[in-house]
Formats: sequence, structure tokens, C-alpha cells
Amino acid sequence: MKDNPVTGKLHFEEAIIAALKEDIPWEDVSANAVVPAGERGHADLLCKQDGVIAGLNVFARVFTLLDERAEVVLHAKDGDRVKKGQLLAEVTGDMRAILSGERTALNFLGRMSGIATYTRAVADLLEGTETKLLDTRKTTPTLRVFEKYAVTAGGGNNHRFNLSDGVLLKDNHIGAAGGVKEAIAAARAYAPFVRKIEIEVETIAQLKDALEAGADIVMLDNMDMDTLKEAVALAKGRAETEISGNVTKENAARYAALGVNYISSGALTHSAPALDVSLKHLKKI
Amino acid sequence: MKDNPVTGKLHFEEAIIAALKEDIPWEDVSANAVVPAGERGHADLLCKQDGVIAGLNVFARVFTLLDERAEVVLHAKDGDRVKKGQLLAEVTGDMRAILSGERTALNFLGRMSGIATYTRAVADLLEGTETKLLDTRKTTPTLRVFEKYAVTAGGGNNHRFNLSDGVLLKDNHIGAAGGVKEAIAAARAYAPFVRKIEIEVETIAQLKDALEAGADIVMLDNMDMDTLKEAVALAKGRAETEISGNVTKENAARYAALGVNYISSGALTHSAPALDVSLKHLKKI
Amino acid sequence: MKDNPVTGKLHFEEAIIAALKEDIPWEDVSANAVVPAGERGHADLLCKQDGVIAGLNVFARVFTLLDERAEVVLHAKDGDRVKKGQLLAEVTGDMRAILSGERTALNFLGRMSGIATYTRAVADLLEGTETKLLDTRKTTPTLRVFEKYAVTAGGGNNHRFNLSDGVLLKDNHIGAAGGVKEAIAAARAYAPFVRKIEIEVETIAQLKDALEAGADIVMLDNMDMDTLKEAVALAKGRAETEISGNVTKENAARYAALGVNYISSGALTHSAPALDVSLKHLKKI
Amino acid sequence: MKDNPVTGKLHFEEAIIAALKEDIPWEDVSANAVVPAGERGHADLLCKQDGVIAGLNVFARVFTLLDERAEVVLHAKDGDRVKKGQLLAEVTGDMRAILSGERTALNFLGRMSGIATYTRAVADLLEGTETKLLDTRKTTPTLRVFEKYAVTAGGGNNHRFNLSDGVLLKDNHIGAAGGVKEAIAAARAYAPFVRKIEIEVETIAQLKDALEAGADIVMLDNMDMDTLKEAVALAKGRAETEISGNVTKENAARYAALGVNYISSGALTHSAPALDVSLKHLKKI
Amino acid sequence: MKDNPVTGKLHFEEAIIAALKEDIPWEDVSANAVVPAGERGHADLLCKQDGVIAGLNVFARVFTLLDERAEVVLHAKDGDRVKKGQLLAEVTGDMRAILSGERTALNFLGRMSGIATYTRAVADLLEGTETKLLDTRKTTPTLRVFEKYAVTAGGGNNHRFNLSDGVLLKDNHIGAAGGVKEAIAAARAYAPFVRKIEIEVETIAQLKDALEAGADIVMLDNMDMDTLKEAVALAKGRAETEISGNVTKENAARYAALGVNYISSGALTHSAPALDVSLKHLKKI
Amino acid sequence: MKDNPVTGKLHFEEAIIAALKEDIPWEDVSANAVVPAGERGHADLLCKQDGVIAGLNVFARVFTLLDERAEVVLHAKDGDRVKKGQLLAEVTGDMRAILSGERTALNFLGRMSGIATYTRAVADLLEGTETKLLDTRKTTPTLRVFEKYAVTAGGGNNHRFNLSDGVLLKDNHIGAAGGVKEAIAAARAYAPFVRKIEIEVETIAQLKDALEAGADIVMLDNMDMDTLKEAVALAKGRAETEISGNVTKENAARYAALGVNYISSGALTHSAPALDVSLKHLKKI
Repeated sequence: MKDNPVTGKLHFEEAIIAALKEDIPWEDVSANAVVPAGERGHADLLCKQDGVIAGLNVFARVFTLLDERAEVVLHAKDGDRVKKGQLLAEVTGDMRAILSGERTALNFLGRMSGIATYTRAVADLLEGTETKLLDTRKTTPTLRVFEKYAVTAGGGNNHRFNLSDGVLLKDNHIGAAGGVKEAIAAARAYAPFVRKIEIEVETIAQLKDALEAGADIVMLDNMDMDTLKEAVALAKGRAETEISGNVTKENAARYAALGVNYISSGALTHSAPALDVSLKHLKKI
Repeated sequence: MKDNPVTGKLHFEEAIIAALKEDIPWEDVSANAVVPAGERGHADLLCKQDGVIAGLNVFARVFTLLDERAEVVLHAKDGDRVKKGQLLAEVTGDMRAILSGERTALNFLGRMSGIATYTRAVADLLEGTETKLLDTRKTTPTLRVFEKYAVTAGGGNNHRFNLSDGVLLKDNHIGAAGGVKEAIAAARAYAPFVRKIEIEVETIAQLKDALEAGADIVMLDNMDMDTLKEAVALAKGRAETEISGNVTKENAARYAALGVNYISSGALTHSAPALDVSLKHLKKI
Repeated sequence: MKDNPVTGKLHFEEAIIAALKEDIPWEDVSANAVVPAGERGHADLLCKQDGVIAGLNVFARVFTLLDERAEVVLHAKDGDRVKKGQLLAEVTGDMRAILSGERTALNFLGRMSGIATYTRAVADLLEGTETKLLDTRKTTPTLRVFEKYAVTAGGGNNHRFNLSDGVLLKDNHIGAAGGVKEAIAAARAYAPFVRKIEIEVETIAQLKDALEAGADIVMLDNMDMDTLKEAVALAKGRAETEISGNVTKENAARYAALGVNYISSGALTHSAPALDVSLKHLKKI
Repeated sequence: MKDNPVTGKLHFEEAIIAALKEDIPWEDVSANAVVPAGERGHADLLCKQDGVIAGLNVFARVFTLLDERAEVVLHAKDGDRVKKGQLLAEVTGDMRAILSGERTALNFLGRMSGIATYTRAVADLLEGTETKLLDTRKTTPTLRVFEKYAVTAGGGNNHRFNLSDGVLLKDNHIGAAGGVKEAIAAARAYAPFVRKIEIEVETIAQLKDALEAGADIVMLDNMDMDTLKEAVALAKGRAETEISGNVTKENAARYAALGVNYISSGALTHSAPALDVSLKHLKKI
Repeated sequence: MKDNPVTGKLHFEEAIIAALKEDIPWEDVSANAVVPAGERGHADLLCKQDGVIAGLNVFARVFTLLDERAEVVLHAKDGDRVKKGQLLAEVTGDMRAILSGERTALNFLGRMSGIATYTRAVADLLEGTETKLLDTRKTTPTLRVFEKYAVTAGGGNNHRFNLSDGVLLKDNHIGAAGGVKEAIAAARAYAPFVRKIEIEVETIAQLKDALEAGADIVMLDNMDMDTLKEAVALAKGRAETEISGNVTKENAARYAALGVNYISSGALTHSAPALDVSLKHLKKI
Repeated sequence: MKDNPVTGKLHFEEAIIAALKEDIPWEDVSANAVVPAGERGHADLLCKQDGVIAGLNVFARVFTLLDERAEVVLHAKDGDRVKKGQLLAEVTGDMRAILSGERTALNFLGRMSGIATYTRAVADLLEGTETKLLDTRKTTPTLRVFEKYAVTAGGGNNHRFNLSDGVLLKDNHIGAAGGVKEAIAAARAYAPFVRKIEIEVETIAQLKDALEAGADIVMLDNMDMDTLKEAVALAKGRAETEISGNVTKENAARYAALGVNYISSGALTHSAPALDVSLKHLKKI
């Protein structure tokens, strides 16, 4: 995904407004108490931790939504590796708007950057191999568009976006259909023809059925290294291969060495700690 | 917060529906392809990791929203410490509804339980002391109500919910007001009288000003242990004290030993990895 | 509350748009019939009755939402005492937009000013005393943010905003808890620590229990003047006191003389007649 | 308007939910603190003031929305004249739901009944005459459907609902069109043919133009009694007549005696004080 | 209806945004893949078929919503008869925004123009007669405001907009009321006085009842030409007459010759094929 | 697409409610005037024209949403070929709900059935061949989910749902990318790996480039029969082929004879006339 203005307009703004309302159901009591109306200020967005930044336009939009005249000058761009102490952006605008929007802006930026940072770290393990890193649907409910974007900013790739735009047949589907071949046949008959068919297989026998039935992608589940090796070799040229699970420094190189096409990881989006970012040096101008 | 039906009706349902629409903008192609209409099934919710569970009613509501006749029998309750392999709930209902709702239900439950688990671990460090653990506003945008609830399920306590219902004067507010006393005076004059006034102080001098001006709560920021000790002693009986920051096994006991009333931690909500939960054994009934 | 742009953006605009849609589900048949497209006009906002004005920015926003180029010049500011015949503002913009928005703009302004006017009249009765006037939650459903703001414009103060941001234990809660002390203890144990605890008491005995249990605020209900006097004396220095009910010219001075801290009145928001304001002298420019 | 289930489903429920969210953005702290989960209770809805009741189904729906098993037994029906102390309804349901919904339910009921009461009082002044009482568009923004319904419950009649479903040409429209005849001609040419054309006239000359141009209804504005008399006589059999303004005990009979068809009053909806209703005797069952 | 900015702001924009979200739930993968960020382009809106154009402002708004700096120069106006090959407008703006908005913009324009074209063709059949062409409520769910506008652009007239703003008593209503006179009496007693009463009659006897009871408009249903002739003659000067049904080249002149006031046709909105319009010659600028 | 309860719950209900609000912004004046509250009735859904029915569950849901106790018994199922005069369903419920929901229910059903009927007619032309009929994105804005479903009910197949879930590179994309190969390469590099890549080609040269670059599907645009024949032969076994455009009785067999895989037609959704369906015989029960 790219963070272009179309997606920003159609998807990001609505969530930003909802988040601001969540944090300000009435007014910002503290800011309204101490800051006179109409004062303008300037603040610095600082990185407090090394990482990869993502969500700078979302961060900026918070302030321009609250104050049409606010200006946010970016000193980095999404996907950049950033350092503790680095100046990422400068915000100029109504002082109350800056104070009231600060936490919401940082909450978006911190989470998105956390995902980008975590993704980057995992993607680096696959550096120099043919294997690509994928995200999953294990995203935060209602915020998937932000998180899938952050994954790409961190060097990962997007698997399907949702249940409508991709077919992935798992054990439950296979059981319901009565077998691997039957499941693939049913999906091929039913799904829009622009969909690829992916299926999860646990044995070499299942894999052979899947390849024979014309699966486009096979997810190799619960296989030991030897079986994986055999599976990847069997699939080569007939279907793409995906391994799902936890990639560690130890196993990344080994998985990649097998020549598997994709490794997917739910942790990219469900367990990445936020990156510490902070708005500092607010001063009246 | 308690997860009673009023909050569930007014706040949880809307987010659940939005999350389902996010994941199913059209239809679940895979489930519709392989599962005949009207078949009913049964599945087990299993814990794949030790932790603290939170969000079971949200999990259940996903299925009853998609299938009015679905039934979810819970074998645990929010706040319980759960073990890897433990059966947490059983779902009976339309097989397509179970397949289509599975990921959304698990995404909510996994995240909420992750927060409860992380919170429980930190709260346990304070066990036996007078010091209470607090959350912050560093929550996932638009999902704060789920996350603040999960914190309480994990044994934590809720700080203010938003910018409207609590006053917390930070360095930027103090700067804008012209000093600690001025900031407190402004807040006291402006805020609804049911609000307590909390202020962040960095020095003993600021603390004295805050106490004199009648702060209800003082957040002790960036102080070393000796200064903290002096600060807590000064505040005793005049204002409640809060320390914000990372609690570790090493410092938890020491902070608590100081007699500080509250320790708040943004990590509870912004960096807790999800708990691994899984829906298994789906079978036709 | 202050009417700053953040609250305006997050809360007022949505209600203004909804109100305009309510009044114009299709089109303004009358304006579209007689006014040619693109004509611009100018009109005067006049006060038709003495009072206190509130909601001028809301009034103005109606027109700038319908016509981005519309300009509204204000000749008064919220909270001003205004006189019959006074020119409050001038509107310049698309003539159809002025005609179509007129009633919605006046409906907001008239109601908000009615509340400010009524509040001012009551607040004046307490002039020179230590007693402050409070609003309640007896507001118009879904428009509380407008009405609580209008109360402050009229010189009143805001009680809690909603059921989440304040604790007020009434007879029903006390009954459910089993007594005054039990109710306060339950609230203290349950409510976020930034909440003050207010409780309604009807007897001196209950008051004593409340003070002992550490209530922050006591609402003195259904007490005669002598009991009130004793109650206020007892509470002095231990808890703030509130009387709820109808303030009249006769009793205002007497209540205030008792030294009670707050008098709250639901009538400010549920029974204030609208202030008569009118858009006049529309002419083509 | 009638309060039938269709309008209730399509319009009332959405506003009720929005009002509940306004009052309970998170949870009802007080109720959750003192009432154990799952307890059921019973409460009485009492009238605290003589008046006319309206909105009983809205009142009831608040509780059945929060608790599907709640039951509300009505002892009166909308439009009834009710007495101070009268038992209007009984609510049985989850105790937390009763406490949490109480204020919202009463806010709707009190306002709607206030309008019905005020309307009834004015309508009674016209009792025995041919003249009917009308409401206006001077309603509370976004709540017009509730208020127009309350007017009918109080014995009033509804004027047009909005700017799209009725044509009313006022001085500004006449000015823009270049005269009474031109305005009526423009409206007749433009408006859907199912619309009647109403026009506001201030002189006998204007009235004659209006009648000649075929106005269906004429609003007689700013005329003294003699002119009114002449105007009503002129219009008789050619157009219906409406007087807008404040009806008082003094002038009601005189206006009606003129034989005018309609008197409209904005005060019915913009200045009716709420009727005092109260939920009492909550007890555990 | 006129397409003035008020209706555009209040009604068109929301549907446009919803349509864009429907087509771009995440991002435009194709445009984002091949077009670099920030490139600007120019494209021509061409007519591919003779017809009547309607919806040009809606078309334009799609692009200005996606790109605030986009400019759309119109070379035709709604209601114009356009020719195959004709240049209707030129779009300049962000190339991705043009590509991403293209289909949505054309879908609105093509449908609205299809309705205008079909309406124009039927209206032309009535050219030179006194009979006017009307639409019905047989519109596309949720898009009625677009379609009723398109009808007027094509030279048709709008019947009532919805069930609230017009009374039309059909056979089912007459049956429920117990007869034509009873139905009219009930409607007259119940409906707001600004509503005209229309009733559907199938026989001369029913017609006479309707006229006697004071119907404003009679819909003559299922009558042969002779009966129609008699009916129109009877109604003349007492009520307006409407015929509903399919107008063809053959019967149009004959119906009009009868002197019936209105002919209504559901086909205008439920069966008009879209007009073929196309965005061509996109080039980088 | 299948019309299963999940899609119904998540997508159909919201549009149904919106459509009902559109038609009943206040109340159904006619029904409320003549039908007493609480009366129950029974009506027949009749087909007035031969065709294919689609949307019966949507039709039924209109009534069960307005009256929870309403029952709709279906005598046909979506996709059935139906005859003029055939009884399709029986509705039993509150008489006002039946009258108020009638038009909305028929508007959905008539449009969806119109699409199914048109699609069936075209699909029949391809009967017995290998060529499949596809829809396009030329759907009614915001109602695509209804229309794509109706296409499948009529025997057609769904192309991509939206711009996010399929890649289709047209002339503009090719131009922007600098050529067919470059466009495919860019899409392959950018799009999620589960997307197939489709590209529109106009010449044999372009087709060869597309095949070489690995396009999954090629849309053959603007080619004469001979070129098409060559193109299909070239693509066989390497990519699927699609022809877009108007299928007629004349050319259908010829296109199919070429062995092209898919024919797509925008007319299925943008120009299908509604099927005439009617609710008759409403009687009190």
C-alpha cells in the first residue's frame, strides 16, 4: 500500500476524527484552562528511540484537521530508519490545537512506526534472499489500513487485505469440503476468476493433491525442515510457497535457504511495541 | 471499567460491526465456496499461551451478531489466569458465520488479553504494596474503551479516560500559564468543580508550589530516588503522588517502597503483545 | 467550557450538518423557486429581546458550511448582554445559502442564548456571594455540549458532563449499596482515582456518615433551612456542599447566606425559553 | 404525526442511542460501583406536576434498548392529561440499565411532555372555535420529529415539516422575486405540483395580489385587528388564512372570532418548559 | 429540483464519498503501481452517445474531493442535448486521483444522464400540449435525490419526494378506510394542512366520490379512453388529473389530447439505460 | 457472491434502513391517516412480467425490520425463472408496516431482478460454450454489493469487486508506465502477491508483450474477429482472455466460438430495466 492522498482522504481522515472525538468528547479542559484563545505555537516532533518511522502524514493531518492554518514540516519520510533524538517534524499552529491533538497524533505515529520498526527488523533477516516477508489479517480491529500500510513502510509485503479479496483454504475449509482437491475445486468454481487460490497443507500428500488441483499458492503448515525442503522442491514452478509462523534470527536464514517464496508473520501487526515518539519544546510564537 | 451490557451495547457492538465490515467488505469467499448454506458447526476456543484472558464477551458477541441463533458457552471469565491448552469457550452456530467471524473475534480477544496479561505481570510486581498501577491515554486510536477495560481485567486501574474528564497540567501547560501556581489557579478557576487537578512537577521547588496551590495529585517526573523520597514525604497527606514511566522488576519494589500512590505505564496499552488464542476443532453438527 | 475551534470542529459541525439535513432533506423549494443561482446578498442579525447572547460562532458556521465564501462579521461576543434592536452580526454570502440556513442558524442561536439569558438572571441573584451556580445533566438529548457551553456563557458553571466523568451517588445508589458509607467505599474502590465522590444526603446522620467516609462533595437534599445551616457548618472544611433545586429571588440570598458552595438548577437547560433573534434586511448585493 | 413503530424504528431509536452515548461515553461509574452485575429491579415513573404526557414509548425504548429483557408497563398514553403524583409507568429490568438509562429517558419524556403541556394550554384557548393551532420550524435542531409529534399529542397541528415539503414565501422571497405575484408565479412554476403555495402578506394590497395569483394559504403578518378582519373576509373561500405570533388568553378569542383558519406559534417548541417527571422507588426484585 | 450548492453540500457529497469508499476500500492498486506520486494530468470527458447530460457537478465533485487542487472545466450544462463525440468537460489534477475517481464519476454521470435522456424523449412526446410528465417513487434506493434531479434536467417534473411530504391514497388505503370518501376525510383530518390530497380512482363512481370529498388531485387508474375522457371532463376545474403508466409514442398524443394534467412514469427512473460517457486522453502535464 | 446471512447482516441491512429513511423521513402520512394502529394484514407479492427473480431476502428484510413480528413466506428463490402472474411471496404483518415498506421493498427487488433477468438473457446466449459472462464496475454507486449479487443470481460471474482487489491495467496505466511490459512489471512489484495481473491490449504486439511479461489475464480490446482469433490462439495456455463490450444475439456465438474465456458487459448493471413486481391483495387479517 502507498499512503497517497486518495487513501488518506477516504480512510485515514475518518479514523483520525473518530480518535480525536474519543480523546476530546467535550473539550480539552487543561489546554482551555491555561492557554489563551488564538495563541500560536511551535513544537518539535522528536524520536526517542531508534527505529523506522511510519505515519508522518497521519501525524500531520491531526493538526491540520484541528487548525486549517497549521503547518507541519517533515524532516523524514515514512520508511526512513530514524535515530533517538532525531528531529522528525516541526508543527506550527494554534497552541490549543497542538496540545489537544498531541496525544492522538503520537498514538497513531507510535503504533505505525512500531509496526514498521518490527517489520524492518524481520525483513532484514531475509535480506539478500529471494524470500519475502508478509503480513496477515491479525491486525487491530478497524485499523487494518493503517497497519498494512505500516508493514510496507517497514519493508514487508501485504498478503490479502480481507476475506473478500483473497481465497485461503485452511484445515476447516478442507474438512468442510471433504478434502484438498474438493476444496480447491469448490473455490475455483465459486470465487471471482481474478482471485488466486491459496491452500494450507500439512503433509506431502496434501501438497501433491493441491498442486494437482491447481492451487496457485500453498501454505506449508507444521512441517519439519526436511519435509519443508521436499515440499518446496515439489512446488517449484507449479505454485508459490508460503510459511507462516514466527521468524527468529535462528530460523530465518534456514527458511530462506529452503527457497520458500514467502514467510508470513502475524506478530508484525499484533505484537509490535510502539515506537517512542514525543512532541517537545512547545513554545509560543 | 466493568464490561456490563450497557457499555457493551453502546460501545462494543459498533466497533465489532465495523471490524467485521473491514474484514468482509463483500463476502467471505472461502467460506461461501466450500460450506453449504445453513450447516451448523461447533468449535473450541483454546488458549495457546499462558496469560490473563479479557474480552470473552466481545469474542462471543461477534458470533451472535452474525448468527442470532449462535451460542457461546464460556469456560473462563475475564481476568482469569489461563494456561496454554486450556479450553476457554465453545462456539455453536452457523458454520459460515463461525468461519467468517473467527479472525475478528480472535483479533479482539488476543489484543485485549495481551493487555490484561501484560498488566497482570506488572501489577504482580506491586503486590503487597500500597502502590497502584495505572494506565494512560497511550491507547490504540478509537479502541480505548476496549483497552482500558482490559487493563482493569488485568488488575490495573484507570487513569482519566480522556482530555475532557481529567485535568493534567504538563510542562507545556505550566509554561503557557507562567508557572506552577498560575497553572493550578487557572485550572481551578476553569475546570468543572468535580475535576481533581493533577500537575507534573520536576523539582522539589515546583512540588512545593503545587502543594501550596492545592494540587490534588502530583506527578513526579524525572526525579532520582532521593528526590522522589523527599517529594513523597512532602506530599503525604496533602496530595496523591504518581510516578510515570517504565516499571521493571528491579525498580518496582523500590518505587513502591517510597510509598508513592500510583505508577502509570503507557506500555500496558501501547506495547503489550497479543495473547495467542485460537479457534479449533470446527466440525459439522 | 470554551467554544474553541477544536470543540467546534469535533462536535458542533456534525450537529449543524445534521440539523441542516433535517430542515433540507432535498432542497429549499421556496428559495430555489424565487432566487436566481449565484446571487449574493447581505443580511443583519438582530436581537428582538433583551438577553445574553451565546452561540454566535455556531450561527456563523451554518452559513460558511453552506457557502465557503460566506462571511459573517460579529458585532457582539458570546456572554454579552444584548438589547432589543441591537445589531449582532452581518452575514454576506450566496442568497440561497442565507435563506436556506437562516432557520437552522437561528434555532441554534435562539436556544443557546435562551439558556445563557436564563442562567445570567439566576447567576445575578448570587452576585457578591461565594455560592456558584451549576447546571445538571437535564439537557436536551444529543445537544448537551451546546447547552453546557451556553450555561458558561451565561455565567454559570458546569457540573459533571456525563455518567462516566463524575460520581454522584443518589438514594437509589445508597439503597443498592446498603448505606452511605458502603456506597462511598464502593465508589472509592471502583471509580478512577481522578474522580471526586459526590453523594446526596437527606439527613444530618447521613451527612455525618458521608463526611466520615470521605465524600468530596455532599448534595444536601430536601432539608429545611435550619438543617441546611447545620449541614453546611458540619461540612465546612471537610467537603464541598451543593444544593439542588429551584432558585428564586426569594430564596437565592438565603441559600447563599448559608455559605453553601454550589446551587445546581436543571431549569437552566430544560426550561429556558429561547431568546428571540432574527435575520433581517436581506438584500441583493 | 403519529408515534407508530415505523417512525419509532427509523427515527427515534437512532436519537435514543446517540443520547445514551452522550451520557455514557464509557460507563456509568456510579451504577457500576454500587450495583452488582445482573441484579434486577423495579421502579415507578411518577408525574411531579400537572400536565399532558408525551413520549412514553420513547421513555420505554430507552430501557428495552439497554436491556432486551426489560419491561415497561404504561399506565397512561400520550396526550393524556396527567396529575402531580400520578403513576405513569412501571419499569422492570436490570438495575444498572435502569440507573444508566434513567436520565436520558426522563430528558426525552420531560421535554416532549413540556411541549404537549404547553400546546394543550394554548389549544384549549381555541376550544370551540374553527381556528386551529399550528407549530413552526422553530424546533430544537435535530429533534424536530420528537417535537412535532409532541405538538400533536398536545392537541396542536403540524405545519410543514421542513424546507423541502412546503412552500412559504416570506418578505425576503417576495423581495427577491420582485413582488407577490412574481413570487407566487415562480413558486408555482418551480415547486412540485403536490405542494400548496403559502405566502406572507403585510397589507391588503399584497393580500389581493396573493389571492389573484392563486395562493393556497396566506399568512397575515403584522396587521391590526381591523385589517385582519378585512383580510380574513377577503380571503374567505379563496385561500386559507394563518396568523403567526403569540397567542395569549386575551387575544386568542379575538383572533379566533375573526374566523382565521390557523394560528401558528413558535413558542410551542422553542419555549415550553419541561414537565417534571421522575423515576422513583427503585428496588431490587 | 435544482442542483444548487446547498443540496450538493448536504446530500451529494456524502453519497460521492460513500461510492468512492465502495470502489476503493483500501487503495487503487493499479494506479498506485504505475503512476508516480504527485504527477499531474489532464483528461477529456467525452460523450459516446447522443443524449441529455445531467450530473456534471457531481462528476466534477468526485475529483475535487480526491484532490483539492483538481480543476474541472465544464463545456456543457445539465439539461443540454449532447452529441456523440462531444467534449463535455476537461479534468486537470493529480493523475492518481483522476484514475481512481474515474469510474465513480462516470457511474454517477452515466446514470443521471440516462435518466435525463429517457425523460427528455418522453417529455418531447408531450411537447406542445398542456400535459406534464412526472416521475414517481420508483427510484434507486438511497439515490432518489440524484434521480429526481436528473428527471428535472430532462424536462420532467417531480411528483412527491417521499411518503411524508405527499398524500396519495391507493386501493389499499381506500380499502382500509372503507371507501373513497372515508379515505379522503381521514387524510384531510390527519395530514398537515399544507399537503394536497391525491387519490387513485378506478371508476367514474369513485371519481365522483373523490371530487365531492374534495380531493385535490385524482389519479385515473385502469380506465379506457372513453372513461378517461369522461373523467377528465368531470374533474375539470375541481381537481387536477394524473394518469400513471407507460407512455408510448402511440398513446402520448392521445392521453394529452384528453387534457389530463399529468402523466407519471416509473420507467423514467427504474428502467432508463445509462448514457455512455467516457474519460479519455489522460496525459501527463 | 452468495446472499448468505453474513453479507445480509453486514451490508444489506444498512442500505435497507437508509432507503426506508429516504422514503419516510418523518412518517407515512397516508398509511397513518387511514389505517388504525396495530391492525395486521396479509399481501401477495406478484410477478407482473416474465424474468429471473433476485433479492427476495432483501424484500423480506424490509418488512421484518419495520415489524419484528412480520413473516414473509417465499414461494420462489433467487435465480428462479418466474412468470407473469406468479405468486412469489406472501407477507403477513402490521398493516402500516406493509404499506410503508412496500415501495422500498419493491424498489430493491425490481432492480435486482431486472439485473438478474438481463444477465440470464445474455448468459443464455453463451449456453453450451466455454465462455463465461462477467460483470464490471459500472454499477450503481453505493449499491454494488446488491448488483454483483444479482448478476450471479442471473447466471453471470463477478469480475473484481473494486479497485483494491484486482489489478487491471488499461491504456492510461500503460501510457503512464511507458509500455505494456513496464506496466506489468510495476504491478507485479507493487500489488499484493495474491492479485492476478490483468492488462488491456489492443494489438497483437501488445499482447505478445503482455504474455511475455507474465500477465495472468488479457483483455482484448477493439480487435476485429480475425485479430481476436489470432489473439486467443496466442494466449491459449499462457493467459486467460477477456472481451469487453456489448454481446448481442449475433455476435455472442461468434465470440464464444473463438474460445475466449470471458465476456464482460457493463450493461448488465448499468442498463438493465427493472422487473415489474407488485404487492397486491392487501387485506386485514
